[in-house]
Amino acid sequence: MSKHNSPSYSLTIRLRFDRKPGALARVATTIGFQEALVGSIPIIKIEKDKVTREFDIYARDEEHERRIIAALEALPGVEILGVTDRTFAYHEGGKIEVVARKHLGGREDLSMAYTPGVGRISLAVSDDPNLAYQYTMKGNAVAVVTDGTAVLGLGNIGPYGALPVMEGKAMIFKEFAGINAFPICLNVKDVDSIVSVVKAMSPAFAGINLEDISAPRCFEIEKRLTEELDIPVFHDDQHGTAIAVLAALQNALLRVEKELSSVRIVIVGIGAAGVACIKTLIEAGATDIIACDRVGSIFQGRSEGMNPAKEEIAQLTNRENLACSLPDMLKDADVFIGLSSGNLLQPHDLKLMAKDPIVFALANPIPEVDPWDALDYAKVVATGRSDFPNQINNALVFPGVFRGALDSRATKITLEMRIAAAKAIAGLVKEDELADQYIIPGIFNRDVCPTVAAAVAQAAKESGAVRL
Amino acid sequence: MSKHNSPSYSLTIRLRFDRKPGALARVATTIGFQEALVGSIPIIKIEKDKVTREFDIYARDEEHERRIIAALEALPGVEILGVTDRTFAYHEGGKIEVVARKHLGGREDLSMAYTPGVGRISLAVSDDPNLAYQYTMKGNAVAVVTDGTAVLGLGNIGPYGALPVMEGKAMIFKEFAGINAFPICLNVKDVDSIVSVVKAMSPAFAGINLEDISAPRCFEIEKRLTEELDIPVFHDDQHGTAIAVLAALQNALLRVEKELSSVRIVIVGIGAAGVACIKTLIEAGATDIIACDRVGSIFQGRSEGMNPAKEEIAQLTNRENLACSLPDMLKDADVFIGLSSGNLLQPHDLKLMAKDPIVFALANPIPEVDPWDALDYAKVVATGRSDFPNQINNALVFPGVFRGALDSRATKITLEMRIAAAKAIAGLVKEDELADQYIIPGIFNRDVCPTVAAAVAQAAKESGAVRL
Repeated sequence: MSKHNSPSYSLTIRLRFDRKPGALARVATTIGFQEALVGSIPIIKIEKDKVTREFDIYARDEEHERRIIAALEALPGVEILGVTDRTFAYHEGGKIEVVARKHLGGREDLSMAYTPGVGRISLAVSDDPNLAYQYTMKGNAVAVVTDGTAVLGLGNIGPYGALPVMEGKAMIFKEFAGINAFPICLNVKDVDSIVSVVKAMSPAFAGINLEDISAPRCFEIEKRLTEELDIPVFHDDQHGTAIAVLAALQNALLRVEKELSSVRIVIVGIGAAGVACIKTLIEAGATDIIACDRVGSIFQGRSEGMNPAKEEIAQLTNRENLACSLPDMLKDADVFIGLSSGNLLQPHDLKLMAKDPIVFALANPIPEVDPWDALDYAKVVATGRSDFPNQINNALVFPGVFRGALDSRATKITLEMRIAAAKAIAGLVKEDELADQYIIPGIFNRDVCPTVAAAVAQAAKESGAVRL
Repeated sequence: MSKHNSPSYSLTIRLRFDRKPGALARVATTIGFQEALVGSIPIIKIEKDKVTREFDIYARDEEHERRIIAALEALPGVEILGVTDRTFAYHEGGKIEVVARKHLGGREDLSMAYTPGVGRISLAVSDDPNLAYQYTMKGNAVAVVTDGTAVLGLGNIGPYGALPVMEGKAMIFKEFAGINAFPICLNVKDVDSIVSVVKAMSPAFAGINLEDISAPRCFEIEKRLTEELDIPVFHDDQHGTAIAVLAALQNALLRVEKELSSVRIVIVGIGAAGVACIKTLIEAGATDIIACDRVGSIFQGRSEGMNPAKEEIAQLTNRENLACSLPDMLKDADVFIGLSSGNLLQPHDLKLMAKDPIVFALANPIPEVDPWDALDYAKVVATGRSDFPNQINNALVFPGVFRGALDSRATKITLEMRIAAAKAIAGLVKEDELADQYIIPGIFNRDVCPTVAAAVAQAAKESGAVRL
């Protein structure tokens, strides 16, 4: 069971009870006794002897929700008029829509938007497809492509289950970057099919955001699409995470006065995010990384549970070629980066680490080690959670990366652009603000996207990856 | 050159000229002398001796636009400050966008829209994909799919050139039916590839609108997708046109007191629309149709320019198996339906037809016969144009057909649904309103979509083509 009450497990419960002193307190006490948090309590209706109120209640999980309802049902004189799961209500009817950007009020508009007027635009764009960036949606459109094989921490739940996540992603694209993102949920899973489909439907888009596609297929899909398309392709689970981690790590290292080039980094979880993090950290100057999966450390010559991506990682990391298991690996490590699954470590395991440990426990929703308890041992702790300081989240990255790529009409996302994005994010925490609990800007910091976009666009131009 | 001034060839010209009596008249006279129409003439700026105004000017084509500008340039004392092509300006930046339907104002919203809250929705939808209709965009989303091979009357202009048209279509879907339609412009053209791609990306959609795909590939693509998908597939160029023609013909026949089952109908143009019209009219009761392409009448045993679709048409039509060319074919025909290209007939050719001819000259933008001149010979004349009475336009059809299909969670578009749509459209012209020049409701008649939708949904339920 999750330990934290969360808005994602919130109910709105409508209760009718006696209108007399102490009655509200009795309800609140019951809810509190169940260890649930209470939000707004608006009054819905007042009668002579009764009052009807709605309670927004934050629970921990579905079982906790059921327990709270049962406790309220058992209260004499309290009538439950309705229970709404707020998260399900939020998703009702879908979360995005397609709307007109231009007025379509009558025949005159219609004759420009559609036949016959549109014919002139079509001919112009057909003659010079670059005009699609000016006269169509293409220039500001990104496809959010998934096959549903590695959705959040839920695994292979398929394209239908993935759709609510892709819609959420599209909302974030619009909210932070003003980009029109649209979910493309595929019910094919082999690399060739995915590459073919994305290439076939690419004309209306200026960028492809690959999402929640499992490793190791995601590496080849991204590589081939990047080679075969003339628009940027970005696998967010890989590079979004890697950029956010690099940004946070740059600032965390300032707090402990250590250098990226000399710290020992343990990375647990060698999926899409882990592989990209390792490569990006090396590209940024890291020299001493040990990677770890379920089996243990990745080393050259290991036979169990390897694949081509891990073979490559074995070449790039673990310079002493150590064969060991996780807690041992932490010995004298400066940085722990978890991209795996919840509750992998006990907080006291962190005692093995070098002085002033940096711990990024990024598994979602449950981190590799309890972040509150980890603070007893580590100097800087970060997670992917919104209810803990130092949230390392891709939403800091992909809106700005795509905004910058689209603004510069980039043809791909280069290493230079990714490193520039990380630096821009890190730079948003000013020197005098930097603290152990503030190494990375908040997701709703509205400076992030434009700052990242400007840095990425500049890097795109400098690395020559732009359409002329 | 097109004979008609049109909003689709409109300019906004900003002119600065002397502020004295007669100066405006001189400008207006110059424009009128060039046979251009003038719309609004707002004042932009007044100086002591000068005035700056914008003129909205409706021209006929681009050459005409250039001529008007040259004439104004030649006027002494008149300075041209700017010329905007209003149609190009209308398309600037694209015509549609993707926006959030739900509020995303802070961390609490984000934790429901995205991780961790969305995980619960994803699991629920993954367990029961039918829940995608309730908790995702799917239930109200239609893919507008084209390969750009038969765009408007422009032919094979490719997926980039097609995109402005697909965006226009998406605007109409939203404006009239509230449906979220999204362009999928494919850069593959073979039947197998198109079928594979559409199937692969179908999960996020509740319907597929095929658009501007050339015959005869469109027939097989539609057939295979209808068989292999569990959501409705509708090739609008075929069935949208056929439904609108059937609706208009039903009302036109009332005006001349003839029966569909006994009239002779000549259909010219055996592309996607022509084939579908023939089949739909036969399904609705027509018995005497002759079809005609560039070569002449379609008959059994013809060898020139045939294909499997035309072979089938030869079986279904031309009961006397006549081999003749177009004007001869009109002899004693009651109805002419043109779905081919402009200026195919001289108005006096219509003299050959039976009493009270019905002429649907639907080629766009230039009809098969000039509709104004055709009125000298025919009782009822209709076109696809918005500047002539009786506009037969797919926009009357596809919003309501899809609205009805989505509302009833239809799995396909059946014959019964298409016939019901035609009847519903025809029925919107009340008995006492019906006239030679009013046989079909106008595109901006807001009753059309809901009326068609209700009829289609009812027919879907009756024909058992709905998801349970």
